[in-house]
Amino acid sequence: MDPASPGAKNGRRRRNEVTVATIAQLAGVTPPTVSKVLNGRSGIAVETRDRIEALLREHGYRRTETATASPSVEVAFYGLESYLAMGILRGVEQAVRDHGYAVGFTDLQAPVPAGRRAADRLLARRPTGIIAVNSVFRARQYEQLTASGIPMVVLDPTGEPIHSIPSVGAANWSGGISATRHLLDLGHRRIGVITGPMDYLCARARLDACRGVLDAAGLPLDPALVRHGRFHFDDGLELGRQLLELPEPPTAILCGDDLQALGVYEAARRIGVRIPDRLSVVGFDDIEITKWCGPPMTTVRQPFFEMGATAARMVLQLAVGEAVEPARVEVATQLVVRASTAAPTARPVRPVRGGA
Amino acid sequence: MDPASPGAKNGRRRRNEVTVATIAQLAGVTPPTVSKVLNGRSGIAVETRDRIEALLREHGYRRTETATASPSVEVAFYGLESYLAMGILRGVEQAVRDHGYAVGFTDLQAPVPAGRRAADRLLARRPTGIIAVNSVFRARQYEQLTASGIPMVVLDPTGEPIHSIPSVGAANWSGGISATRHLLDLGHRRIGVITGPMDYLCARARLDACRGVLDAAGLPLDPALVRHGRFHFDDGLELGRQLLELPEPPTAILCGDDLQALGVYEAARRIGVRIPDRLSVVGFDDIEITKWCGPPMTTVRQPFFEMGATAARMVLQLAVGEAVEPARVEVATQLVVRASTAAPTARPVRPVRGGA
Repeated sequence: MDPASPGAKNGRRRRNEVTVATIAQLAGVTPPTVSKVLNGRSGIAVETRDRIEALLREHGYRRTETATASPSVEVAFYGLESYLAMGILRGVEQAVRDHGYAVGFTDLQAPVPAGRRAADRLLARRPTGIIAVNSVFRARQYEQLTASGIPMVVLDPTGEPIHSIPSVGAANWSGGISATRHLLDLGHRRIGVITGPMDYLCARARLDACRGVLDAAGLPLDPALVRHGRFHFDDGLELGRQLLELPEPPTAILCGDDLQALGVYEAARRIGVRIPDRLSVVGFDDIEITKWCGPPMTTVRQPFFEMGATAARMVLQLAVGEAVEPARVEVATQLVVRASTAAPTARPVRPVRGGA
Repeated sequence: MDPASPGAKNGRRRRNEVTVATIAQLAGVTPPTVSKVLNGRSGIAVETRDRIEALLREHGYRRTETATASPSVEVAFYGLESYLAMGILRGVEQAVRDHGYAVGFTDLQAPVPAGRRAADRLLARRPTGIIAVNSVFRARQYEQLTASGIPMVVLDPTGEPIHSIPSVGAANWSGGISATRHLLDLGHRRIGVITGPMDYLCARARLDACRGVLDAAGLPLDPALVRHGRFHFDDGLELGRQLLELPEPPTAILCGDDLQALGVYEAARRIGVRIPDRLSVVGFDDIEITKWCGPPMTTVRQPFFEMGATAARMVLQLAVGEAVEPARVEVATQLVVRASTAAPTARPVRPVRGGA
């Protein structure tokens, strides 16, 4: 029951097992034609391919060669949530697939046996390139990965660019600008802000952008309306509650990410504040579910697919010895206006519970 | 600028580029020791490893070998949503990582160049095994994949098991049982059902289970309270609206999946029906966001991580020529009770809009 280790020969050909040569003979083709079908190559007539595949199935063909996998680009995640990861993987796949690379998936946060390092197994697989998707990646892991000599690009939605490694990020600052302008344009003057952790560059960029726009509008950000938290639902819930229970609550809240915004939704729901009637909420990321929450969320889209594809193109360039210029690419963000933002009501109204 | 094709030699060693031998000499170790560090092998003292890594970085070491990747298990998705896929990938990775396999990611739904088939590229990479994650996988694709002789397991959260291929599913029927019993135990007697498409076996299993429990309780399912739709938010919204606008609406709605349940949330929100005060809602899947919607959702958990891990263990067994018995494994589901279900109010009350 112990599964294969990859070095093991995949079983010797047993008696009565069919070979490529036999299939070729039965199909009236040459063995290389059968191999082409087995390996997904093109240039074979459809009927021939169908006939060969039918014979392979009928005779229960099984491979016996030792596996010789194709080269791969590995996407290594560390502490990144599912709802962001799939877009990145799909983008990487689209960029590398026509070049014959496999896309590998690694979760460096998963536990490893004692004495090994998380990145060891990744290196042992000797990928052609590595895309390290970082939210709380450790400097020590970067060092190990870069020392390996394997081309690496950091895809970095949240952290600080490490200047010795080419990296891809999103335009957080301009995303913060467009979100804040949207609220000002709707007429909001009392805007609350919930940020991500201040040691994340992306969180700083979004806050700085918001502050800049408000300053330019002559409405400096009120420190009493700013809260800092982790990029978690729970933090949005607690900090949203704090803001909504202020004697003079904000008419709109800009959130550090969509999860915080969902937390604010829940805080508002519990207190009986309707969105967007009494409160406008803006998220950041445009994760899938923002379309499906009640009401659908206005948010700033981070293009995870494009970020993955960009990182993949960079790593392929590095793999053939090309320099990557510029070494830091920021992919554009975009405000997506849905139903969680509206003009503020004329005068702030205290939360109501079922009053007619 | 055209990225590498994998067959290409990764550039000849340029002048002044550092070799493994040079690094070994500088570090006072043998070249194999340097290779061990480069390839993430164990058995090297921490200080030695650190010294070698520092030298590799300092001298800007770059690999020149042609890539020789390790064998992989490829997870091929077709039409499955992101929020389900990551759990599966993580489960596969956990099961294969200690055996030295890479985990590959393939989206067979992605467009391919004319004349090629979606599965061709996957086969061309010659993985050791394939896990085909199916929601609307095509029979034609199965035939091609199985004809290739590469060990394959179908991970099948929604469809019908194909009996010639080992498969992993979830216990949909018992999930439907526990969800229905939960509503009966709360006191609901007028239960609406929104199902998935009736050509999906999972949707049938869940409906059959519900019907069976209600029959056993002497409360046969009222056909007027049953609706069929796709596993989409929009269908939950529309069908939920239909049920809530009935002259005598149900006090609880069992949904085919979590997305439909989110649609019912939105239908209830628009009409002004509070969950769970006036309406209990049960989802199916336990996707990540059910914890974060308002109110947190009662749902039936499909264990995607465990399903991925189970499929991976099966494919590794097949890869060493072992038979897989049983050829169909159903992983248990589990009711997760959160805040979207409660006892019904004593008498059905028409939707209220702000009435005190």
